[in-house]
This record gives sequence, C-alpha cells and structure tokens, in this order.
Amino acid sequence: MTNSAPVSARRDLADAPLLAAARGETPRHTPVWFMRQAGRSLPEYRKVREGVPMLQSCLTPDLVCEITAQPVRRHGVDAAILFSDIVLPLHAAGIGLDIVAGTGPVVAEPVRTAADVAALPQLAPEQVGAVGDAIGLLLAELGRTPLIGFAGAPFTLASYLVEGGPSRNHERTKALMHSEPRTWHALLEKLADTTLTFLQVQLAAGVDALQLFDSWAGALSLRDYREFVLPHSRRIFESLTEWDVPKIHFGVGTGELLGAMRSAGADVVGVDWRIPLDTAAQRLRDAEPGRDAPVVQGNLDPAVLFAGWDAVEREVRRILAEGEAAGGHIFNLGHGVLPSTDPTVLTRVVELVHSITRR
Amino acid sequence: MTNSAPVSARRDLADAPLLAAARGETPRHTPVWFMRQAGRSLPEYRKVREGVPMLQSCLTPDLVCEITAQPVRRHGVDAAILFSDIVLPLHAAGIGLDIVAGTGPVVAEPVRTAADVAALPQLAPEQVGAVGDAIGLLLAELGRTPLIGFAGAPFTLASYLVEGGPSRNHERTKALMHSEPRTWHALLEKLADTTLTFLQVQLAAGVDALQLFDSWAGALSLRDYREFVLPHSRRIFESLTEWDVPKIHFGVGTGELLGAMRSAGADVVGVDWRIPLDTAAQRLRDAEPGRDAPVVQGNLDPAVLFAGWDAVEREVRRILAEGEAAGGHIFNLGHGVLPSTDPTVLTRVVELVHSITRR
Repeated sequence: MTNSAPVSARRDLADAPLLAAARGETPRHTPVWFMRQAGRSLPEYRKVREGVPMLQSCLTPDLVCEITAQPVRRHGVDAAILFSDIVLPLHAAGIGLDIVAGTGPVVAEPVRTAADVAALPQLAPEQVGAVGDAIGLLLAELGRTPLIGFAGAPFTLASYLVEGGPSRNHERTKALMHSEPRTWHALLEKLADTTLTFLQVQLAAGVDALQLFDSWAGALSLRDYREFVLPHSRRIFESLTEWDVPKIHFGVGTGELLGAMRSAGADVVGVDWRIPLDTAAQRLRDAEPGRDAPVVQGNLDPAVLFAGWDAVEREVRRILAEGEAAGGHIFNLGHGVLPSTDPTVLTRVVELVHSITRR
Repeated sequence: MTNSAPVSARRDLADAPLLAAARGETPRHTPVWFMRQAGRSLPEYRKVREGVPMLQSCLTPDLVCEITAQPVRRHGVDAAILFSDIVLPLHAAGIGLDIVAGTGPVVAEPVRTAADVAALPQLAPEQVGAVGDAIGLLLAELGRTPLIGFAGAPFTLASYLVEGGPSRNHERTKALMHSEPRTWHALLEKLADTTLTFLQVQLAAGVDALQLFDSWAGALSLRDYREFVLPHSRRIFESLTEWDVPKIHFGVGTGELLGAMRSAGADVVGVDWRIPLDTAAQRLRDAEPGRDAPVVQGNLDPAVLFAGWDAVEREVRRILAEGEAAGGHIFNLGHGVLPSTDPTVLTRVVELVHSITRR
C-alpha cells in the first residue's frame, strides 16, 4: 500500500498469488478463480438463496459474505469475488428495476431521452452501505484469500437502461449513441459516477483488487468503443489509481477491443476463449508498445467443463502453456460458470492448475 | 457457365453487379442486398405470412416466390435471396422440429449420442422439390435480378440438433465435439450431406449464387473451428465447384475465423460490423497470400438503421470507402435486418449505395 492511498480496511496480502500475478510478479503458483464461481452451480448457494430475491440478497451482508466465501471453501480458489449483480448500484440508487427469473434485469422506465438522463438518480455511498458491511465480514471470513471488488462498466449498464432489459442486438442503445451523442455521453458520465461510487465503497471497505465487467462491449466495433465507451471506462480507472489495487477489465467477444480496454487503465485484461492467451498478450503489446508486459486472465471455454475430464485437462494444460507464453497469467474461464456446471469439475481444475504451476 | 457445369435452369446474368463483384470484376455499381431482407420488416411479408406457419411457408412455392421477390420490388436490391429457414432441410428430411414464435427452432428429440447420429435421416432431393419449384417461379418473376441460394452450414445445424433449440452457450454441442470427436464428425458429415443435397436442388433449379450461413461459428475459437467444422464446410464448397456460381460464406462474430472460412472454398466472405472491411480483407490476404484478391460482403451494423438518416448515411459512406480499400465489395448489413427496422430506410440505403458507386 502506498502512503498516498486513501483510508481502507484492506489486509496486507502482498504475497497472495492473485495479487502478485496481477502486479506482473511471479506468484508461487498460477492463481485461479472463476467468474460466477459464487452462484447457481453450487448447491450450498441454491440453499441459502432459497426464497430471497436476487437484489435483496446482494444487500444482505451476512448472505453476501456467505455466498462470496462458498467457492473459496469448496474449490480453494485464489480469490473471492464479491457476490453482487451488475445492476445493483442502479437499484440501490433508486432506479426501478427487477431481476426476472429466466430473463434478467428488467427496467421499469427505460432511459432514452435527454430528460430521462437528466432525471436519472445518482448513487450515494450510503445506499450501498450494506455492501461495505458485507466486505467487512468477508475480511474476517476469508483469511489470506484476496477479495475482488465487482462492478459493471458504463456501456453495459447503459444498455440495460436504454433497452429496458437484456438485449441481443442493443439496437436502441446503439441508435442513441449514434443519433444523440451528447445525450449518450451524459448518460455514460452519470453511470461512470455511479460505478465509481460503488467501487469506492468497496475499496474503502477493503477489497484487494477489482474487476470492471463490460460484459456486452463485444457488441461494438473498435471505432464505436473508442468514441462512445472508452473515455468513460478510462475515467473510472483513472479515478481509482490512488487506491493502488490491481484493476481487471473484462468483456465477452472483445478480441478486437483488448488493447483499447487495457489502455483504459486496466492492469489485467480478461480474455474469452475465442483467442489464445499468447495471441491476446501480443495484441496488448502491439497496442501499447511502451507499457509493461501485459497480464491476461482466462480463458477456458465454460462449455468445455461439460466435455468430461480428459477434455478439460487437455484444455487446461494448453491454456497454461499459452498463459506462460503470454507473460503474466491469472487462470479463469473465458466467461462465467454456467449454472448446470458440475462443481466438482471446478475443484479439480483448481487442483490441476496449482499442481502444474507450483514453483 | 463452363461446359462442364451440371444441367441447370440458370439464367445468363453475367453482367449483374452482384455476380461481377463476386467474381472480382468491376461491377457498374456496388451491389447491395440485405440479409433477412425478405421478412418481418416488410408489411407485405407479414400480410402474406398471416396464419401460415414458417416451415409450411418455406415449402409453398408461390409463397416462397412472392416473399423472396418482395424486397426486390420494394428496395431495388441487386439480389434476391431464397426465402427459407436454416432448419428447413432437417424438417424436410423428417427430423421432428418446429419453429416456436419468440424462441426459434425447437427439436423434438435432441441428437446427443452415436446412436442418435446413426438414426438421423438424410435429405432426399425430392423432399425439397417445393423449393426447386419456387426457384422455377422466381426465375420468371425476378427478371434480371440474381437469386442467391440459401443453406445453413453443418456446425450451426448441429448446434440446433444437439442443444434441441437455439442456444446461448452451445455447451452440449461443444461438449460433444470435445468428448466424442468421432460422433461429432459423423454428425457433421451427415449434416454436410443434407446441406449439399439442399444446395444441389437449388443449383439445378437455377440459383445464380449461394450463401452458406454458419450463423453461430463465431462461438468457436479458430482452433476448434479448424478441427471440428472447417473440413465439413470445405467438403460442401468443394462438392459444388462444378456448378460455377459464386459462393458466399457468413457467420456473426467471426473476425478471428475469416481466413479459415474463406479457405473452406468461399469466393466471398461476409463480415459483421465489428471490424472494418479493409481490415477484414487484409486478414483474408494474410491467411492465403497466394490467392486472388478477396471479395468481402457487409457490414453496416443493423442497429444503426435505428439511428436516423444522418447516422446511416455517415456509416454507409464509411463502409463504401473501406469496401473500396478492401478490393471487391458487396454491400450488406453485418447481420440480418431486425424485425422492427423501418423498411423505407433500407430503400434509401440502396439508393445511396447506387448513387455513390455508379461508374
């Protein structure tokens, strides 16, 4: 922790493999965790969530603590990631939305005009006080395992608000950005502020790293990403520099955007399964030749977890070799754990990654 | 037409802009058509489809003729594309499936084992005789406008059969390919035969070009695409060489696969909106340095059609410039027309493309 860092309850976990790898150092083994590791693939998760609506569970500190810690206990992963939902800060700020089973977040009044944007409430830190409290519980619960903070990036949040829910084609979102760029940028500015507040609460409460999910950025061309999205994601990362924690940035299908996503200020770039990690790292080097060697995170296809252990092991070994060639590597899936995944396979993946890479 | 070409009712349309561009020649203007141009965006389509189930409509010759011709009449596009459905040949072969509104194709008995694959019926040409009849009607109806034949590629068909319907993550499909490669290849071999039969019927009936849709290939890494998909798509293209018509190959999110998709034997490669056409063409040249200059098709983001005319015109002009830099170019969207698209915008796009590129 640097002297200039703001006040935080953060633990000193300098030697944790996740943090060492994220800093470009050599960890004692390749760290491994899984996006959506806390969630429906675990029977203990389904049990504690029974009857509790999603957004309520994200604002109940002991439930967040329990759910976040479950995959650490079960799998021995090298990081916990805060159990939350991408739209939680919007809900907490007072925007009417609900998570509908089988659909996803549904927004009561979609945001489509300058007036809608002006009327959008901003998140105040105390509105996500429960998340800070949950992190407080987790610092005691997790022992020496780092905790990754969680937030959605402005583009992905904007798409939910503009479309009114999950969208396959993001046509209203793209129509707004292309037809009313001032309204668009005003919207993303507000959403970046909300994301920033959400992450600052998490950082003050003591998270050891953070991951900014721009889940749907892969729907954009590089040209549109640079013009309509990057400045806002960059402002978030730049505003958090003083906290001195590793910042991970991820989206699906972002092979064309990786360099731009890193240039937003990410220390680690998540890569889906579509390109090998060494190719991804080369793209990152090409995009910013003057910068430190890149660190990549990924990239086992979550579908491969259904293909039997031989296939899983083969793919894990390939990815570790490509991660080695890439430079810094945090092992993960290329997207979130699918709900019907057998969790015992995930545990074996953790053991395999550790056994192969122990130094 | 070469002397060795099989018997076909094909018209002589050598100077049609679509065919000239596909052959790498200079057309009198840049040809333009739209994927899904025949469909729900047109009120005249919704009218004639009223009460007629999708698969039945695809097997009713005068309806296929009418629907296929509608966008030619309305927009003045440079090509018609046969109105059909990607699962039509499976249905015609006797595989139990239905198109469920709001969902897509639903397969009664998913195909997941070697026995399932062995039991899969193959398409006989007479089972799609109605499609040939529809093409016969279209040759008279379309005047000098080329007609593009239509078929789904084996991977995309396999995903429907294995998953039992549309899938976001294709996990059962990928699990099958990785865990039982022999069963996988047997399945794709059968599907390639069915696709071949479907296309041969269309070619004999007189289509002037064809497009093979591997809509979901973008879900695969290049490595998996090469091993599990490419050989089967290649067999289809190679088996059709003697017909001497331009062959177009397209999938969404296939920026990493473009070179491999062309190497399967495509004359024209469709590109979605995620990468500029000149970048796409460079990838195609890099993948096969010895081959003729590539021809690309695309790539206006269908969502931009909702952004107002100024944005549409700006994007069309950019894409035409990038297409010019690419070499050969057929203007199209980067994916299908979305159902709520205003069709008058499509007509203006056709006029704009023609007015800018008239030679």
